[in-house]
Amino acid sequence: MADSTARQRKGEATRAAILDTALRLAGARGIDALTIGTLADEAGMSKSGVFAHFGAREDLQVAVVDEYHRRFQRDVFEPAMAEPRGLPRLRALFERWMGVITHEITHGCIYISGAFEYDGRPGAVRDALMASVSDWRGALERACQQAVDARQMREDTDPAQLVFELMGLVLALHFDVRFLQRPDALERTARGVTRLLEQWQAPPRN
Amino acid sequence: MADSTARQRKGEATRAAILDTALRLAGARGIDALTIGTLADEAGMSKSGVFAHFGAREDLQVAVVDEYHRRFQRDVFEPAMAEPRGLPRLRALFERWMGVITHEITHGCIYISGAFEYDGRPGAVRDALMASVSDWRGALERACQQAVDARQMREDTDPAQLVFELMGLVLALHFDVRFLQRPDALERTARGVTRLLEQWQAPPRN
Repeated sequence: MADSTARQRKGEATRAAILDTALRLAGARGIDALTIGTLADEAGMSKSGVFAHFGAREDLQVAVVDEYHRRFQRDVFEPAMAEPRGLPRLRALFERWMGVITHEITHGCIYISGAFEYDGRPGAVRDALMASVSDWRGALERACQQAVDARQMREDTDPAQLVFELMGLVLALHFDVRFLQRPDALERTARGVTRLLEQWQAPPRN
Repeated sequence: MADSTARQRKGEATRAAILDTALRLAGARGIDALTIGTLADEAGMSKSGVFAHFGAREDLQVAVVDEYHRRFQRDVFEPAMAEPRGLPRLRALFERWMGVITHEITHGCIYISGAFEYDGRPGAVRDALMASVSDWRGALERACQQAVDARQMREDTDPAQLVFELMGLVLALHFDVRFLQRPDALERTARGVTRLLEQWQAPPRN
């Protein structure tokens, strides 16, 4: 009994270590570059060892998307949800997302890079990505709607439009930081986000 | 003499036909999915036939980026440059770019998808992409600066900032149309672009 628990724990630790390596690889080279073979090499394991934990290549890729989602929830979504409803929460959601993109520069954001990688390729990986991204997008739109309901934002604010435009700024950040390697990208994004939010902020009440 | 000219023309026509297929493949599956083998299959040629025209795989990928650039110049840049300097030209540059993304839905924009594909991978393909994208970005910033100089836009307009924000909207369009497949993306982009340009438009002079 104690033995099987210890074995199970060891199995979980190994799985977590492989996932860690897989996330790093996917962030640097793309989800599609993830194969059982490259991952085994990188993790210093046998192919059959990796296969035993994740099964076929597509299962591994889906597991990576799911793990990214779990970490995104933990590092971006949940701490931002601890902020008060409305504008403070909406700001925190975007600031934390921008943090992921700029600080984890070697990783990038799989929601973004994965979307461009898989947009023309239906299958389990795209489905997993779409579910995660739609979930995140929904959370942003809800936070925006709550800011409208709390009269912190103008009542003619269209949450889907505002989130679309804010998302564009985050995409431009990813593009400029990772591809063009422009050092001013974070500053430009922050200026854009601030101006956009100010534009839709409710006028002060008397 | 006549024979060698005819042979040369035939060679050019074959090369153009292969490039056409290559551009379609790169747009649908990514530049990295382009190999001499897949291209030969798709074009119904032998591998050695494709190789004779393009050399190694990386040369082929660079040729595809260069050809995309040439077509982008022809279909987006040059017709927009025929518009009067300033706001009309800036608007035309973005409208035509948005057209490429929405109408050539199976192709997508290689400047965008390629950037996300190659951001973490130095080499000749990324260099070719960066040269093309920087060129295009420079053209957008110049058009914006000309609108400021012509006093069509406010003198405190920061062209690099405005182009960064407009680019974000185009990236969001690409993301929403191709990945999330949202039918309202073009309408949202157009609204964002219009509002952003109105915001920086110079007040009417007396």
